[in-house]
Amino acid sequence: MATVEIWTDERVDADARIKKVFDDIRATRHSDFVNNVWRALANQPALLEKTWETVKAVMVAPGALDPLTRELIYIAVSAANGCGYCVHSHTAAAKQKGLTAAQYGELQAIVGLASQTNALVTMLQVPIDDAFLVP
Amino acid sequence: MATVEIWTDERVDADARIKKVFDDIRATRHSDFVNNVWRALANQPALLEKTWETVKAVMVAPGALDPLTRELIYIAVSAANGCGYCVHSHTAAAKQKGLTAAQYGELQAIVGLASQTNALVTMLQVPIDDAFLVP
Amino acid sequence: MATVEIWTDERVDADARIKKVFDDIRATRHSDFVNNVWRALANQPALLEKTWETVKAVMVAPGALDPLTRELIYIAVSAANGCGYCVHSHTAAAKQKGLTAAQYGELQAIVGLASQTNALVTMLQVPIDDAFLVP
Amino acid sequence: MATVEIWTDERVDADARIKKVFDDIRATRHSDFVNNVWRALANQPALLEKTWETVKAVMVAPGALDPLTRELIYIAVSAANGCGYCVHSHTAAAKQKGLTAAQYGELQAIVGLASQTNALVTMLQVPIDDAFLVP
Amino acid sequence: MATVEIWTDERVDADARIKKVFDDIRATRHSDFVNNVWRALANQPALLEKTWETVKAVMVAPGALDPLTRELIYIAVSAANGCGYCVHSHTAAAKQKGLTAAQYGELQAIVGLASQTNALVTMLQVPIDDAFLVP
Amino acid sequence: MATVEIWTDERVDADARIKKVFDDIRATRHSDFVNNVWRALANQPALLEKTWETVKAVMVAPGALDPLTRELIYIAVSAANGCGYCVHSHTAAAKQKGLTAAQYGELQAIVGLASQTNALVTMLQVPIDDAFLVP
Repeated sequence: MATVEIWTDERVDADARIKKVFDDIRATRHSDFVNNVWRALANQPALLEKTWETVKAVMVAPGALDPLTRELIYIAVSAANGCGYCVHSHTAAAKQKGLTAAQYGELQAIVGLASQTNALVTMLQVPIDDAFLVP
Repeated sequence: MATVEIWTDERVDADARIKKVFDDIRATRHSDFVNNVWRALANQPALLEKTWETVKAVMVAPGALDPLTRELIYIAVSAANGCGYCVHSHTAAAKQKGLTAAQYGELQAIVGLASQTNALVTMLQVPIDDAFLVP
Repeated sequence: MATVEIWTDERVDADARIKKVFDDIRATRHSDFVNNVWRALANQPALLEKTWETVKAVMVAPGALDPLTRELIYIAVSAANGCGYCVHSHTAAAKQKGLTAAQYGELQAIVGLASQTNALVTMLQVPIDDAFLVP
Repeated sequence: MATVEIWTDERVDADARIKKVFDDIRATRHSDFVNNVWRALANQPALLEKTWETVKAVMVAPGALDPLTRELIYIAVSAANGCGYCVHSHTAAAKQKGLTAAQYGELQAIVGLASQTNALVTMLQVPIDDAFLVP
Repeated sequence: MATVEIWTDERVDADARIKKVFDDIRATRHSDFVNNVWRALANQPALLEKTWETVKAVMVAPGALDPLTRELIYIAVSAANGCGYCVHSHTAAAKQKGLTAAQYGELQAIVGLASQTNALVTMLQVPIDDAFLVP
Repeated sequence: MATVEIWTDERVDADARIKKVFDDIRATRHSDFVNNVWRALANQPALLEKTWETVKAVMVAPGALDPLTRELIYIAVSAANGCGYCVHSHTAAAKQKGLTAAQYGELQAIVGLASQTNALVTMLQVPIDDAFLVP
């Protein structure tokens, strides 16, 4: 279905530059499974490397937000942008990081509410309150 | 700038149905400040009541996600949907709930990364991995 | 604020090709007022002509949907696409075509609800029912 | 394909809270068919109840806009938001409510035109006319 | 999967008005293949004619931008709008017009970067520099 | 208007890490003018550095697409995503890189057409032709 080749492991193993990224994905995630987005990006080595480097820095490295919260934000953006694949992959990641049914239900409620009020506010062209402006 | 009247306090005070909602907003938030989205929704009493009721249930009531996390998700969706007013109001709310500069920076990085990969995945039409499907 | 010149009447009157379109807008709408979108498109005569011709055919010519219903659909799409100018101009048009406060409130409720369920459905990746497929 | 379980009738019948909503959907629509969005929302009872309650109030209850017009607006928003499932379910609903080929063709023309002009206006950053501002 | 009938060649050949458009598509593209979007639009003859006429004028006729550049812009917009079909059809068209792997990789990088910064700028509500304003 | 401080030159000059990036922006662009997006990102040094590094690699470094074509793609994505600031800054950049009125008019026509057909295709849920699939 993709507009580009989805690289099989055999194809990856024969290309040292791509294999290095895939090895790091596997080591970082402690899993042999590498999902299709990386197999699609493999057609563009520089973009693959840069994207994985950013994902590692933003989603995996220690920081001020815990890993599950980061996934919730990722799912929310992906839903708003209409990316079905991204919703699937990050919901799977969130589940692996301990997403409970209650948390998932609240995420749904927030994303739904925000989408509703976003549309209403745009439709009514509500002016920004002075109190919200940064001096 | 709005497509509807933005209700002043004087106008609100003269309408018992609207005033009841505004009183509850003030009591719930422990603040006299009521921002413009409610003053715009005041033109449609039923929609005002229902929207506030949902905001209260989804964003204020105790739950599985802490209040700051809920605001981060709201900001993320609002940015993806391009609602400037909503970004402003929920960033202000997040700051009131203790948002640190480090957390805000990570939120920016995640929203930026998700938006980038959402576009890439859509452009490459990456097929959903079988492993992501719910049985 | 625009990225292009907004043509004044003086500028329009000095250009026969542009003036012809503006004259038709005024005659069709029975009003001397020509709003800024046409003054911005004036920088590209062919695009101006084609856009006005389409607006006239789709929004003005008699058809199966009444003029107010067409404006409601236009506002809904513009809100979903985040176009503040378009929301403003078509809300003004709807008011001229008799939009009541009750109709406007229902439009807000529908656009808000659709935006909410759109986000939920995308987030849950709901599969299309067989019953919805056209044979 | 969904990120959550799609509830079968057997599963629904064994859960009184969910069954109550499904019974009301069936009674309200005078049909035994309950489409997948409700079967997906069944995983979150409170969200299911609230969403159905809102759909009933906004799309089914008598009001100032006729039922078919409401569906046209819903389809338009769903197309703009890129929700394939929602487009399918509300196009089916519109057909049930008497959508003619001529009306459907005009809806397509309006949604297409609005999307085109929304993009043009955003690209040209057209300033809002003073005449559109609400006093 | 469509919400409308996808016209087969047999159906097209039996309708003179539709056949005329299909004949022109085939002659213009020097190919017997007519893709599904035209077979879906065939249900609305006026919309089919107008859409093809515009595609021919904007994407095929000689102009200031070369045909491949036009396709790159089309793919970029389609990715941002989340239209999978459109991404597919215009990526195929770009390949026919000589898209190289290097160009495709750069297109991916630009669309990804723009989507990221668009989201960041919206989230930070960056004010427009005076230097960008058209006098 | 921003949700963060917009750094003045005085503030930048007092912070070595930020100043280094601003110096590189000025040197790379052969201009003393640094626009607001960088002054907003200055609040998050790591994000500022990474974003500028990517912009430099994707938009400035030699490649298979010429600099003006890259700006056209950037404008197109920004318009589709509804980012007014981004439309402004990249239209200014395109003009500096030689954008002609004819090219700009064609860009407008393509972005408008793509947005229109994207919406139509989504509304009709057109199935992807087998011919478009990558083997």
